Amino acid sequence: MSRHRVVVDIAGGTNPTWTTTLDELSVLQQELATEGLEIHVLVHSRAWPLVAWNQMSSSSEIHLQAEALARRGVRFVLCENTMHGANLRKRDLLPFVKTVPSAIGELVKKQTDGWAYVRRD
Amino acid sequence: MSRHRVVVDIAGGTNPTWTTTLDELSVLQQELATEGLEIHVLVHSRAWPLVAWNQMSSSSEIHLQAEALARRGVRFVLCENTMHGANLRKRDLLPFVKTVPSAIGELVKKQTDGWAYVRRD
Amino acid sequence: MSRHRVVVDIAGGTNPTWTTTLDELSVLQQELATEGLEIHVLVHSRAWPLVAWNQMSSSSEIHLQAEALARRGVRFVLCENTMHGANLRKRDLLPFVKTVPSAIGELVKKQTDGWAYVRRD
Repeated sequence: MSRHRVVVDIAGGTNPTWTTTLDELSVLQQELATEGLEIHVLVHSRAWPLVAWNQMSSSSEIHLQAEALARRGVRFVLCENTMHGANLRKRDLLPFVKTVPSAIGELVKKQTDGWAYVRRD
Repeated sequence: MSRHRVVVDIAGGTNPTWTTTLDELSVLQQELATEGLEIHVLVHSRAWPLVAWNQMSSSSEIHLQAEALARRGVRFVLCENTMHGANLRKRDLLPFVKTVPSAIGELVKKQTDGWAYVRRD
Repeated sequence: MSRHRVVVDIAGGTNPTWTTTLDELSVLQQELATEGLEIHVLVHSRAWPLVAWNQMSSSSEIHLQAEALARRGVRFVLCENTMHGANLRKRDLLPFVKTVPSAIGELVKKQTDGWAYVRRD
């Protein structure tokens, strides 16, 4: 088990904010690499375009940035309630994205297990 | 003591967001019912109309939704600093609402006692 | 070690909100003084003018309010990534401000060590 474990709660839907948050996570990985760190990014509500696309959006810079983090071990998790609300199917998600039944349930369970929690817009 | 305990921090004042959050809590109750779950909704700042009314507002859908959750064991807690700022008296609150001296004090004490924390707008 | 320890995450850039948050912290100090309390205010992103000034801003009410809290033991911490992004040098910071390499790293490490976390806008 890593010494540091954090679930990052992302609910907002604006792209400059996402880029800043993913930049932060990239720096965080370097900062805590030697101590041991596990990062889960929990995406829900209006933030779903960060990890999915549909007719209204197309692959983009932010998807490439997410993919680069995923390749370095960051886990991206999408809320299934959000999926249903946005009419997303499994094949609309970026290939490395996992899903959980509900965002809030995941946040509670992770903290019960000792994970840190950080809210980002 | 329940396996999972969470205090939900609600400071924002917009109604569609409240409905979404209370819907989430309703799903959460079902999701973690068998594992054991305690939910406190901590209302403060501009969010007070979620659990109170005055001359400017009237009972509404959101109050009925809150009441339904309260009947199923969710506790609604209002910050007394917020009460004073909004000129609310005890009789302005929905009957099932408890109060605490300050929102931030409650959030700190709950986390010291091992509760999870979730911020919602 | 204090019984209660909390890191307050401030990322937003609007002044009425800052005043409310610092007022809250002042009340919190009184509320939990006898139990033992340590408060760190972690400032980052658009919130940097809370603890620094440059050509675009000048010393102000909010700086005096922060200084009063600092004198009573609250620690103010600024993210160095934010400093670089806003072209701030050490001498632009209020004299009592400490810095950390990254906001999110600080939030994770503090929670790993058992600190409570409160997000404010």
